[in-house]
Amino acid sequence: MTASPAFERLAIVGIGLIGSSLARAVRAEGLARTIVCADANADHAARAKAIGIVDEATTDPAEAAAGADLVMLCVPIGAYADVARTIGPALKPGAIVTDVGSVKQAVIDAVAPHLPEGVHLVPGHPVAGTEKSGPDAGFAALFPGRWCILTPVPGADEGATRKVADLWRACGMTVERMDPGHHDRVLAITSHLPHLIAYTIVGTATDLEEHLRQEVIKYSASGFRDFTRIAGSDPTMWRDVFLNNREAVLDCLQRFTEDLTALQRSIRRGEGDALFDLFTRTREIRKGVLDARQA
Amino acid sequence: MTASPAFERLAIVGIGLIGSSLARAVRAEGLARTIVCADANADHAARAKAIGIVDEATTDPAEAAAGADLVMLCVPIGAYADVARTIGPALKPGAIVTDVGSVKQAVIDAVAPHLPEGVHLVPGHPVAGTEKSGPDAGFAALFPGRWCILTPVPGADEGATRKVADLWRACGMTVERMDPGHHDRVLAITSHLPHLIAYTIVGTATDLEEHLRQEVIKYSASGFRDFTRIAGSDPTMWRDVFLNNREAVLDCLQRFTEDLTALQRSIRRGEGDALFDLFTRTREIRKGVLDARQA
Ligand SMILES: NC(=O)c1ccc[n+]([C@@H]2O[C@H](COP(=O)([O-])OP(=O)(O)OC[C@H]3O[C@@H](n4cnc5c(N)ncnc54)[C@H](OP(=O)(O)O)[C@@H]3O)[C@@H](O)[C@H]2O)c1
Ligand SMILES: NC(=O)c1ccc[n+]([C@@H]2O[C@H](COP(=O)([O-])OP(=O)(O)OC[C@H]3O[C@@H](n4cnc5c(N)ncnc54)[C@H](OP(=O)(O)O)[C@@H]3O)[C@@H](O)[C@H]2O)c1
Repeated sequence: MTASPAFERLAIVGIGLIGSSLARAVRAEGLARTIVCADANADHAARAKAIGIVDEATTDPAEAAAGADLVMLCVPIGAYADVARTIGPALKPGAIVTDVGSVKQAVIDAVAPHLPEGVHLVPGHPVAGTEKSGPDAGFAALFPGRWCILTPVPGADEGATRKVADLWRACGMTVERMDPGHHDRVLAITSHLPHLIAYTIVGTATDLEEHLRQEVIKYSASGFRDFTRIAGSDPTMWRDVFLNNREAVLDCLQRFTEDLTALQRSIRRGEGDALFDLFTRTREIRKGVLDARQA
Repeated sequence: MTASPAFERLAIVGIGLIGSSLARAVRAEGLARTIVCADANADHAARAKAIGIVDEATTDPAEAAAGADLVMLCVPIGAYADVARTIGPALKPGAIVTDVGSVKQAVIDAVAPHLPEGVHLVPGHPVAGTEKSGPDAGFAALFPGRWCILTPVPGADEGATRKVADLWRACGMTVERMDPGHHDRVLAITSHLPHLIAYTIVGTATDLEEHLRQEVIKYSASGFRDFTRIAGSDPTMWRDVFLNNREAVLDCLQRFTEDLTALQRSIRRGEGDALFDLFTRTREIRKGVLDARQA
């Protein structure tokens, strides 16, 4: 590319699925002159350097963040406070700290207190992912056609927010802004509850007697395997999501449980019409998803 | 093909997703000299004839079954008793009646009483499907690499069972035999419970306020859309599955609900280790599914 890159030094903290996908996209689009990553997992840091998706790699977030004009946090949410505390003193004035975390209010609470005056926080969430982890699982094509939600706090620097929005747009995403609490409620139903349910149903199968469990695996093509894919997602990431979006998740779960109890009663009583009605209404949502080209 | 086909006249009653997939596979493999279908939906019957996947099409199951050496029931389970009553008098001695229904004990109860002496019942279930319906949704590649479960009743004709097994093998499936009640318990967990859960969660989203529902659709890529696919399945078929496998489904649902309640409590109490443990155990099952090449 000929134009000068949007960022001189991009620091990605956590070079797993999302971090490495971003590194690949940024490299492909020439959006940063230098990409440096930090990962507590030394193998992941070394691997990212070896496959050439970053220019520098370290296990020390402060080293990566020093002199960076953009720092992108791509670690599990439970690690945010520690990372923010570590990088805080190393950040240069005017630096932007942003992230990809699946929960937004808790992230603001964990990170903001550790950032020095003059550093801009722009919380973000690219709504795209897979059940895989680590630097080899990433790919630049993860982002195009998907949504990225930014949740700037009141009074946030508009220029900083715009730069982060432009970065995600250059990666192919459509950017939306949202209140952090609203983000957490919407994602609780579209993402967190589905994962919770998938983990539960696969867990229920795990507890079956050995021979029955083998049969469940054998005949999984009939519906179950889609749940096993979701329930194969990273345990650390998802533990942190549930611990950090507790209220919204428990609220959704409550509604879900009520609906499930009603359905259970319909089955017990043999109320075919009630089942048919529900199964017909759910088709509309599927149609909406297809029309919105999100499937 | 040069060898003479295994069946002279195959009658498929219900030419939807499964029936039309079978017609295509049988045609491709030359397994029947004549394929005739009956479907209560005149458009479906006409369509099957028009696209050339059957030789004859009618809306009258008795007409299709007359003279057939094999009758394959591919209608929703709630229609089985009626269809069996209608075709019973038309069946020729030695004819085999088999099916593809997703529940097996209830099917035996509904069909067996209507079959004349000398006609053989071989209940079966090709464990393969999609969320689509109708004759245009079918494809012969649905079956290869998947399992087909036959649940012959005690004293069933061994030759008849073998012929049905050979048919599914020729379509690319691996055939297993099972007790009907056991089939129903295994499928309750691998297929019926996942569908029930998916219908419920999508139903929960359907009941949200309009603007929130639109956002759920918009951000569905984060987990929800997999559930919408499953919950887009045919309402009639699934109503009939739940009404006809009530006990096993309610039993699974009970276990699932207990596990969900435990998880809910872990989230409320912030028990990260319990969440992490469960999310790690479920990965094993995913590995099993991948190893068994069912994903
Ligand atoms: N996966 C998705 O579908 C998805 C989608 C959107 C957003 N997100 C968000 O993206 C973030 C990362 O998720 P991911 O899927 O990319 O996870 P991942 O593939 O596991 O990558 C996370 C990386 O961070 C490392 N790490 C963990 N703790 C660290 C610490 N304290 N300091 C530095 N590095 C640390 C991990 O090492 P170890 O592997 O050794 O722990 C790993 O290399 C999460 O906040 C998640 O909410 C995920
Ligand atoms: N779909 C799957 O994933 C799957 C997998 C394995 C087994 N099965 C089993 O396969 C069977 C058929 O399912 P499918 O998915 O193929 O459904 P489908 O695509 O809806 O096909 C069923 C066909 O039967 C017709 N029909 C309904 N009632 C009838 C009656 N009384 N007499 C004659 N025709 C009638 C339907 O017409 P209308 O559309 O007008 O009602 C439709 O053309 C079910 O028993 C199901 O349990 C399904």
